[in-house]
Amino acid sequence: MAKERETERLRLTYGQVGGGPGSLIGPVHRAALAMDGQAELVAGSFSWLFDETLEAAKALGVYTERTYRTFQEMAEKESEREDGVDFVVITTPNHLHYEVAKSFLERGIHVVCDKPLCLTIEEAERLLKLVRETKLEFMVTYTYTGYPMVREARQIIRNGGLGDIRVVVAEYPQAWLAEPVEETGNQQASWRTSPKYAGISNSVGDIGTHIENLVHFTTGLEISRLSAKLETFVSGRKLDDNAYILLEYSGNASGSYWVSQVAVGNENALRLRVIGTEGALDWRQEQPDQILLARKGKPMAILSKGNEYLNEESQLFARLPPGHPEGYFEAFANLYRSFCSKLISKKQSIEEDKLFTDVLDGARGVKFVHDCVTSSNRGSEWIDGSFKI
Amino acid sequence: MAKERETERLRLTYGQVGGGPGSLIGPVHRAALAMDGQAELVAGSFSWLFDETLEAAKALGVYTERTYRTFQEMAEKESEREDGVDFVVITTPNHLHYEVAKSFLERGIHVVCDKPLCLTIEEAERLLKLVRETKLEFMVTYTYTGYPMVREARQIIRNGGLGDIRVVVAEYPQAWLAEPVEETGNQQASWRTSPKYAGISNSVGDIGTHIENLVHFTTGLEISRLSAKLETFVSGRKLDDNAYILLEYSGNASGSYWVSQVAVGNENALRLRVIGTEGALDWRQEQPDQILLARKGKPMAILSKGNEYLNEESQLFARLPPGHPEGYFEAFANLYRSFCSKLISKKQSIEEDKLFTDVLDGARGVKFVHDCVTSSNRGSEWIDGSFKI
Amino acid sequence: MAKERETERLRLTYGQVGGGPGSLIGPVHRAALAMDGQAELVAGSFSWLFDETLEAAKALGVYTERTYRTFQEMAEKESEREDGVDFVVITTPNHLHYEVAKSFLERGIHVVCDKPLCLTIEEAERLLKLVRETKLEFMVTYTYTGYPMVREARQIIRNGGLGDIRVVVAEYPQAWLAEPVEETGNQQASWRTSPKYAGISNSVGDIGTHIENLVHFTTGLEISRLSAKLETFVSGRKLDDNAYILLEYSGNASGSYWVSQVAVGNENALRLRVIGTEGALDWRQEQPDQILLARKGKPMAILSKGNEYLNEESQLFARLPPGHPEGYFEAFANLYRSFCSKLISKKQSIEEDKLFTDVLDGARGVKFVHDCVTSSNRGSEWIDGSFKI
Amino acid sequence: MAKERETERLRLTYGQVGGGPGSLIGPVHRAALAMDGQAELVAGSFSWLFDETLEAAKALGVYTERTYRTFQEMAEKESEREDGVDFVVITTPNHLHYEVAKSFLERGIHVVCDKPLCLTIEEAERLLKLVRETKLEFMVTYTYTGYPMVREARQIIRNGGLGDIRVVVAEYPQAWLAEPVEETGNQQASWRTSPKYAGISNSVGDIGTHIENLVHFTTGLEISRLSAKLETFVSGRKLDDNAYILLEYSGNASGSYWVSQVAVGNENALRLRVIGTEGALDWRQEQPDQILLARKGKPMAILSKGNEYLNEESQLFARLPPGHPEGYFEAFANLYRSFCSKLISKKQSIEEDKLFTDVLDGARGVKFVHDCVTSSNRGSEWIDGSFKI
Repeated sequence: MAKERETERLRLTYGQVGGGPGSLIGPVHRAALAMDGQAELVAGSFSWLFDETLEAAKALGVYTERTYRTFQEMAEKESEREDGVDFVVITTPNHLHYEVAKSFLERGIHVVCDKPLCLTIEEAERLLKLVRETKLEFMVTYTYTGYPMVREARQIIRNGGLGDIRVVVAEYPQAWLAEPVEETGNQQASWRTSPKYAGISNSVGDIGTHIENLVHFTTGLEISRLSAKLETFVSGRKLDDNAYILLEYSGNASGSYWVSQVAVGNENALRLRVIGTEGALDWRQEQPDQILLARKGKPMAILSKGNEYLNEESQLFARLPPGHPEGYFEAFANLYRSFCSKLISKKQSIEEDKLFTDVLDGARGVKFVHDCVTSSNRGSEWIDGSFKI
Repeated sequence: MAKERETERLRLTYGQVGGGPGSLIGPVHRAALAMDGQAELVAGSFSWLFDETLEAAKALGVYTERTYRTFQEMAEKESEREDGVDFVVITTPNHLHYEVAKSFLERGIHVVCDKPLCLTIEEAERLLKLVRETKLEFMVTYTYTGYPMVREARQIIRNGGLGDIRVVVAEYPQAWLAEPVEETGNQQASWRTSPKYAGISNSVGDIGTHIENLVHFTTGLEISRLSAKLETFVSGRKLDDNAYILLEYSGNASGSYWVSQVAVGNENALRLRVIGTEGALDWRQEQPDQILLARKGKPMAILSKGNEYLNEESQLFARLPPGHPEGYFEAFANLYRSFCSKLISKKQSIEEDKLFTDVLDGARGVKFVHDCVTSSNRGSEWIDGSFKI
Repeated sequence: MAKERETERLRLTYGQVGGGPGSLIGPVHRAALAMDGQAELVAGSFSWLFDETLEAAKALGVYTERTYRTFQEMAEKESEREDGVDFVVITTPNHLHYEVAKSFLERGIHVVCDKPLCLTIEEAERLLKLVRETKLEFMVTYTYTGYPMVREARQIIRNGGLGDIRVVVAEYPQAWLAEPVEETGNQQASWRTSPKYAGISNSVGDIGTHIENLVHFTTGLEISRLSAKLETFVSGRKLDDNAYILLEYSGNASGSYWVSQVAVGNENALRLRVIGTEGALDWRQEQPDQILLARKGKPMAILSKGNEYLNEESQLFARLPPGHPEGYFEAFANLYRSFCSKLISKKQSIEEDKLFTDVLDGARGVKFVHDCVTSSNRGSEWIDGSFKI
Repeated sequence: MAKERETERLRLTYGQVGGGPGSLIGPVHRAALAMDGQAELVAGSFSWLFDETLEAAKALGVYTERTYRTFQEMAEKESEREDGVDFVVITTPNHLHYEVAKSFLERGIHVVCDKPLCLTIEEAERLLKLVRETKLEFMVTYTYTGYPMVREARQIIRNGGLGDIRVVVAEYPQAWLAEPVEETGNQQASWRTSPKYAGISNSVGDIGTHIENLVHFTTGLEISRLSAKLETFVSGRKLDDNAYILLEYSGNASGSYWVSQVAVGNENALRLRVIGTEGALDWRQEQPDQILLARKGKPMAILSKGNEYLNEESQLFARLPPGHPEGYFEAFANLYRSFCSKLISKKQSIEEDKLFTDVLDGARGVKFVHDCVTSSNRGSEWIDGSFKI
């Protein structure tokens, strides 16, 4: 006992709902959390099959007594323990996000939830209300906001480095749904193209929301109107697999987004271009350590992660010197580091900036998906796309 | 005399309307023609100021007796000469294209006209009719169709290398009109942003038409419907400087175009991506010697100009071995080589494929500009964008 | 107790020597180990200042009773504990590698040692002998061998995909020592340019060895002769900061290496090109997820991490789907996963391939550095560079 | 007659030796000259087969009376004509350069000669002497010096933009001789790998000299010592097809060159990197319109052809606005424009800078090839590589 006290440091504990065998994103959350060692996995309801939960628990070193058949049971029991988890990580299919998040918030437990936040605007509003009432922390893991150079983009723009923004062009093409793989056993494809599990949209919900968030996160622009055209190229598919979205933002800027999961030749090619009166920037997820920065009348500059000429926040988000590539895991780990750091300062009653995307960002994403679907259903009519909750 | 006969080969002569002092594209046409030496400049009305015409004639080695005060005079006189020009090259501002082209066609002289063909659909129809009646050759110089790798793209697609086309994403961002340079003496900017000289559109007319042509030339897709949003970012400007266009093509494909002249950081960044069920390709004007070619389930391939693994037509359009860059001038020269070659075979009554874009392509471009403006004026309404002349 | 047994899985424990406050690579080892959770840090002698060791232990959750003033004490005590560490991670400056490794090997503890293995050929030979006698596992962490696409390169070459190798061109330019930063408080620079801590070479020892290892790892080529030219551009510096090395390999291949730490504009730009009779490949550390693969007469192919068209081993080393960047940490984690996996199979008496670079690779590196220095000292004389231990 | 006088401008005439049917570079010279129309081809001895000369003359519009069976006859006759050629263009195989150049110089005719200047140092000295005595202009067409961004590199370096130069790394890999194509009818390969026609070296003579010239042209560095290793990978080949060259320059800089014609996967990949104390630059022939420019502590900049932020000379060498690719032909045309411009000013007794590489550059190249061969023959011994003529 004495031994323990000597080495004790402020370390958090967490539980996970979802993320059992076969999950893609579940293990990413855990690995990201492990990188900084700020929080330990001690509880879980990893699957709706309890056998799978037990199997996962064993593999992950979680005591059987803190495994749970249902997330409700987990929320209840963990909230009653003196050493109950500090936060829960939700990595279930989308349709469960709302109920799980709600259960834990109501039991006073902080929440991390993969995007999208939930399936309907009403759910989003209720979660937002709950968070405001409980004053709990709620992170929605928009992974790409964890990249150092996305932070740099945000700082450049917010500091006026591009002047007034005129044009935003963003795209997120992938190829993995170019064929009806949901019919041939691809689990990810199955639930993502199923209205029951994924909600009203596939491509816009899954990757379009990343664009929406990335644009808002880096530019602060608010959408005023939008027109969307959602398409389904693969015959028999129930949800969209390609979409074009045109936008007007407050303050005279306009934009164009393209998302596709039938774009043969593309892997995960999220790209953001923001063009202002004085400069422009260009960031690509597949080369996340760089930004191309144009300034009127000057040569293009290649900003590279970790250099001293960058803004403080982006330097803080780099873990290695320039030229040492950091990727998707590190972006995720950066989000968790910010989140855990926030919880720890809270415990210590220290004020700290919130450097992660939260329930409000999640709600904005849900609204965006609904607006896109609505516009598309009305023949790509231009509709009000503003977000006021 | 005898001497001359000994060395005689079938060489063409041409005259030029426009292209005098200050012209950007006029000298490009001449240099492109000079590269292959198939045609000699022997006549001209290079400016509406006769002094400038005389000055240009002197510099270009054109005899004074074949300089003309007006294009009408030139058409008349040249058609009457036994050694009159084989063809005329029209490099005036857009608003004169129609009248000049008409004059020469009516006098039986072949025509090369810079794009856009003319300003109104009616003009386009009349020119088209004239060409059909006279059976004269009429090339519209869509420069980018002269690049070897654009020919390769065309061949790949036409040979089914991409399967059925699903998505076309094209863009043409430039930065040169990000400021109101038309107010500070930039001549190019002045006429291009003037409805009188440029017609109903600036950015769509000037560079959007290149996209329209490039897509049609390489894919053969016919537009069925389109929705356009033309914007003017620079205050006081009379025509559009940024535009988004969404499209449906015959055969279930869709597309998105973006053109901009306020895109700081971009030079002349025309890019075409065509995505099909089996493959996809990506071509960029600023690296014209390459195509990225994706085939489902295989690594991306980088096709490079002049290699033996390419299609015959693209090899024919390469003048140098692989790795020896060919650019804008060579693309232009390739068009002229095709055109002159066609005229020469005609003189020799030889059948030959027509490897250049013609009056029909020009008319299609005019129609496209009008459709975009119409849609944009109606709040980006989706309208019929089909071309039937 | 019973609880613990229920969730127990085969998990390793490790201790660390070095890696205390101010260390660059120490935390990378720990984070890499944490990603897969196969081994837990339970002991340490993190600094030669015991206060710093205690400080680090606290931060890392290591019990005070398993912190040690010296590595000798640590080796002794840990070897005596029933729950002593399975392996030690050595992240001290280079000059201590030998003594630390020796101490642990002699106590029967597996070793992971950062490169270079040690400072002299004699030390290398003794370590090699010890490893052979004790049959302990000994990993030398040549980080770049952990990248999926380096594994792919190795497989392609070993499977004959390039034909017979003719030419190897490799380079590793950095900029960080372009100024005498060792004089202005840069700790990394101080010890790396100090003969006492870094041995007989700076640039060849630090980064040249990465090239040497990468070439051998991927191609299997054995150096037969070499000529080196080590240079010191920064005045007052005691060791080399730039070097050119020409090589002959067994089997008629030749090569050229360039390493530099004064190469302004470069970050960590390790690049390997291997050219054979039938094909060639090109890999860059700063875009580690790709290989450019040429095959005679065919278009260049861009191989991308995680795709099914790749070899099995490189797919195994990818943790995320294509297009999700993996970087330096993941490369490191891959090495540790291989190492831990080997230890675990050993405990379970399972035969398993050794997928990591070991003491022999380390010894080869030490020999290479000495050969380069010898040749350079003799006016770049060509000398026997073969490795036989 | 009067007509002619009216339109007369100062136009030059030239003749060509070599460049008949099957020639690669002959037509490039002619097309480059045609682009600016400053000089007209009026005489020629295009082949050692007179029938081929006649055939070429016919195709090129050269009067039969000015075709010649031998270059000697041509030099003699043209020098006697009142309207004799202003200059001769020599595009024969290398072994004839000396005799042809000498003949024309002795007859008072200016000379343009493709590189290499000649085969031996003695020949180079004699030509140099002749040029100095006759005060004739003599251009050696090192094509790559005609690129706008090579001019920019030169200006940047000469203006001290990189500080003191430390390291030069240059390479020129090609793939076209990876197989013994000289045995299967490839004419270019046949003469280039033949000691009789190409002299003592193939790869160093053909492409190594381009590196030597490019380095000297842009940096002004003088070689003091060098060590070379020439290799022949293709069995049966009589001259080198791969080479490594290490260099010391006056003023403490060092360098490494690699040339190869067996580098599968490469087309014409000449690349120059110059690294100084304050900055570094990187230029690639296959993307000639760009330079990567590093400055210590600042983001990498991408300089792009034709922009106003560039030096005056490089702007002058750009013919089109930024983003309009210019290639190999334009580089050549730029050289000829400089040369013709010099001849014209000479006729007008105007002083003008000489913006082209001349006989001295050619002689330097010949010396370089000999030094490389000498060093290689002596087991890559370091030898004096200085150039003093």
